Amino acid sequence: MIEVGGAIIDKDTVIAEPVYLVLDGDIIERYERGTYPCEGGEPVNLIRKPNRVAIPGLVNTHGHAAMTLLRGAGDDLPLMTWLNERIFPLEDKLTEDAIYWGTQLAAWEMLVSGTTTYTDMYMMMDHAAKAVAESGIRAVLSVGVVGFNDVSRENGMQRSRSFHGNWHRQASGRITVTLGPHAPYTCPPDYLTEIAELAKELDVPIQIHLSETQTEVVNSQGDHSLTPIALAEKVGLFDVPTLAAHCVHVTDADLDIMARRGVRIAHNPQSNLKLGSGIAPLPKMLEKGIVVGLGTDGAASNNNLDMFEEMRLAATLHKGVAQDAEVIPAAVAFDLATAMGAKACFLGQLHGTLKPGAAADIVLLDAASPHLLPQHNLLSNVVYACGADDVRDVFVAGRQVVSGGEPLTIDVERVRAEVARIKEQLVK
Amino acid sequence: MIEVGGAIIDKDTVIAEPVYLVLDGDIIERYERGTYPCEGGEPVNLIRKPNRVAIPGLVNTHGHAAMTLLRGAGDDLPLMTWLNERIFPLEDKLTEDAIYWGTQLAAWEMLVSGTTTYTDMYMMMDHAAKAVAESGIRAVLSVGVVGFNDVSRENGMQRSRSFHGNWHRQASGRITVTLGPHAPYTCPPDYLTEIAELAKELDVPIQIHLSETQTEVVNSQGDHSLTPIALAEKVGLFDVPTLAAHCVHVTDADLDIMARRGVRIAHNPQSNLKLGSGIAPLPKMLEKGIVVGLGTDGAASNNNLDMFEEMRLAATLHKGVAQDAEVIPAAVAFDLATAMGAKACFLGQLHGTLKPGAAADIVLLDAASPHLLPQHNLLSNVVYACGADDVRDVFVAGRQVVSGGEPLTIDVERVRAEVARIKEQLVK
Repeated sequence: MIEVGGAIIDKDTVIAEPVYLVLDGDIIERYERGTYPCEGGEPVNLIRKPNRVAIPGLVNTHGHAAMTLLRGAGDDLPLMTWLNERIFPLEDKLTEDAIYWGTQLAAWEMLVSGTTTYTDMYMMMDHAAKAVAESGIRAVLSVGVVGFNDVSRENGMQRSRSFHGNWHRQASGRITVTLGPHAPYTCPPDYLTEIAELAKELDVPIQIHLSETQTEVVNSQGDHSLTPIALAEKVGLFDVPTLAAHCVHVTDADLDIMARRGVRIAHNPQSNLKLGSGIAPLPKMLEKGIVVGLGTDGAASNNNLDMFEEMRLAATLHKGVAQDAEVIPAAVAFDLATAMGAKACFLGQLHGTLKPGAAADIVLLDAASPHLLPQHNLLSNVVYACGADDVRDVFVAGRQVVSGGEPLTIDVERVRAEVARIKEQLVK
Repeated sequence: MIEVGGAIIDKDTVIAEPVYLVLDGDIIERYERGTYPCEGGEPVNLIRKPNRVAIPGLVNTHGHAAMTLLRGAGDDLPLMTWLNERIFPLEDKLTEDAIYWGTQLAAWEMLVSGTTTYTDMYMMMDHAAKAVAESGIRAVLSVGVVGFNDVSRENGMQRSRSFHGNWHRQASGRITVTLGPHAPYTCPPDYLTEIAELAKELDVPIQIHLSETQTEVVNSQGDHSLTPIALAEKVGLFDVPTLAAHCVHVTDADLDIMARRGVRIAHNPQSNLKLGSGIAPLPKMLEKGIVVGLGTDGAASNNNLDMFEEMRLAATLHKGVAQDAEVIPAAVAFDLATAMGAKACFLGQLHGTLKPGAAADIVLLDAASPHLLPQHNLLSNVVYACGADDVRDVFVAGRQVVSGGEPLTIDVERVRAEVARIKEQLVK
C-alpha cells in the first residue's frame, strides 16, 4: 500500500489529491482516492508519503546500457569518426566483467532517474542480464548481432538462441528477450530473413536500428534500390513484431509500411540531435497511428540515461520544428514515455500505467520540489518542469529499489570503484 | 578556501585532479592544483570536498522570475491564445506580495540547480529585488516597460528611474539595474528612443525582446518596413549596450547589424521550442562574433529554470538542425552558459569563470554521480550528462547559499505555503 499526495494514473487520469495504491505482490490491485483508512491496531504494509506524487515508471525503449562505460569518450565528432576512432576501439576491449559493471552503472542511473523498464541491444548479454536480475530493474534484452561474415552470422544465431534459453522470462519475469539484428547495413538481407525465422520459432519480437542517418538511406537505395524500411519489409522482418529505433530519415511510404505492419518506433530525440543525425517526424508517426516509445540510446551518444529529458524534448522539439505550440501536448509526451513506450517494447496493455492489473512499477516524485510549485496542472509540471532531481522513491514489480533518491539494490561504492578500474583498462 | 576533486576554471582550463580555490571575500584570489597544504595547527577557513567538481555558477541571461507562479497555467497553446487567455489574465492579478514570493521560488529553483546569476524583466521590481537581496543570488534586473499610451509610457520612465535609484549596485553589488523596454511591438519607436536616452543618462544597458516570432517580424515589416532589429538600430537603441532576447527570426542583415553594434543575444532554446517560435540560428550568431548567452525565459514558457537543460540543448539542438555533430561543441556550450553569458549581461570580463579576480560564484557538483562516471572527459560529462540533480553546494560572492542540495538562505517551507496561497488567489 502506497499513499501519496497525488498521482498520474495514465495520460488521461490525473489525481491532484491524496490517493493510495493497493499492491498485490508485483501487481497494482487498485487505487482509491483519499487517504488510507487505517483501522485501529490492524497491521498494514503501508508506505505513507503525502509529500509525493506517484507516476508510472518511465520506459526507455532504446539503448545500449553498458555504453555508460564510454560516456564522454568521444563527442562533437562526425558519426563515422566517432564510431571508428573512438567507440569501436574501446568496445573491442570490453570484457564480460565490463559489461556487467557498465550495466550496473546504467541500472543505477536509470532507477534513480525514474526509469523502471529499459531495452538493450549489446554484447555479452548474459552479463548484462545478471546485472538486471540483481539490480531489480525490468528489461527487454537482446543480443546485438551483425552478419559481416559466416562466423559472425553463426555466432549471432547461436548467442541469440542461447541467451533466449537462459534469460527469457527470468528474474521473476522482469526480463524478456527479443532478437537484436543491429541494422540492415550490418546484416545482409538473407541474414535478416534468417533472424526473422528464428524470431518466429522462439515466438519473440525483434529490435533493430532503421534509417538513423541520411547516409544509411542513400546507401540502401544505392545497394538495394529500397529504403532500409522497405528492405526490412521485403526480407520478412516485419512478419515478426518489430521495434525499430530512430527512423529519422523516413518517407511517407516508409511510415505507411510501418503503420500497416504494426512496426513500433523508438524515438531518440537527444541522441539524434547530438550525433547530428537529424530530427525524426514524430507528429507524422503518431498521425499514422504508429506506436512510438522514447529512448535515450547509449550513454556514449546522449550522454545520460535520463528519460525526463527525452520526454520533455519530445514535447518541445517538434513544436519548435513545426512552429506550432499545439504539437505533442504534455499528455502525449507522458504517454510516449510510459504506456505507449511499454507497448512499443511489447509489454502488456496496462504496463506503464498505475491502473488495476498493471505491473507495480511506480515512481514517487517530491511534491515539495520547486518544479511542482504551484500546481496549476500536475501533468504539465511533470512533463515540462520535473527532472531526475525530483525522483525520490522507486518500485519495480512491487519491490522498493530506490529510497529517498538512493538505490537500495546497487552497491554504488563498488560500482564507482569497478567502473573507474575498467575505464583505466579501456584507455590504457 | 574550497578544496575539490576537480574543477572547470573556464572552457579552456579543465582540471581533472584535486585543486583548491582561495577566496578573498567575494572574489576568487587564485586556484592551485593539489590538495591544500594544511600547516600544523594553523586555523584555516577550509571547505574540503574531494568528492566534488567545481564549476563557475551558471548565468541565466533571460527570464521573468516571478512567472514561476504561472508554471503550468497554460501549455500547448498558440502564443496569442496562451498570452491573452491564460497569462495576461493571471498577470493582472499579481500583487507586490506575489512578485516577492514568486521571485523567492525562482531564486530557490535557480540556486539549487546551479544558477548564480540571472536576468529579469518584469513588474513591481522593487519586490523582486528584495527577494534577490535576501536569497543571496546575483541578478541583472529591469523594470519591464511598455508604451501603449501616455500613462504607461510615463509610468515606465518613472519606475525605471526610481528602481535604478533604489537598487543599482545594491545588495553588496550583487544587483545591477538595466532598462527593460519589452519589445518594439509594445514600445513605439519614439518611446524606444526616449528609453535609450534615459539609459545613456543613467549609464546602464538595455534588455529587450527582439524577433521572437515570425509574426512579430512580418508585422514590423508591415508597420515600419523594417525588421525589429533594423528598427531598433534606427531609433538609437543600439547606441546603448543592449541584450536582445530570442532573435529567432533574423536575417543575415539583422545579425550583421548586431555584430557591428556589439548587441548581445540571449538564446532561449527551450522556450522557443515550447512556444512554437522556432529555432534561432545560434551557430551563425557565433560565427559573426556576436556575444551570446543562454536563458530559460520565464517558467510559464519553459517550464523550469534549469540552465543545465539550456546548456545541453544549445549543444545538441543545432547539431541536429545542421545534421553536423561538430556544431556547438561542449566547450562552446559551457562558455555560453558561463563566461560568455556573463559578458552578454554586462558583467565583468572574468565573471562566469573561476579565474583569479573573478567573482566567487561557484557550484560544486557531486563527482560520485553516475553522470560523472567514468571520467573520460570532465567537460563533456558536465555539458552532456550532468543535471540539476548533481548540484550539491553553491556559493555566490563567496557566501555559501546551498549546502548538500538544500538552500541555506531561503525558507522553503514558507515559500511553499505562500506560493500555494497566492496560486489560490490567482485562480479564484
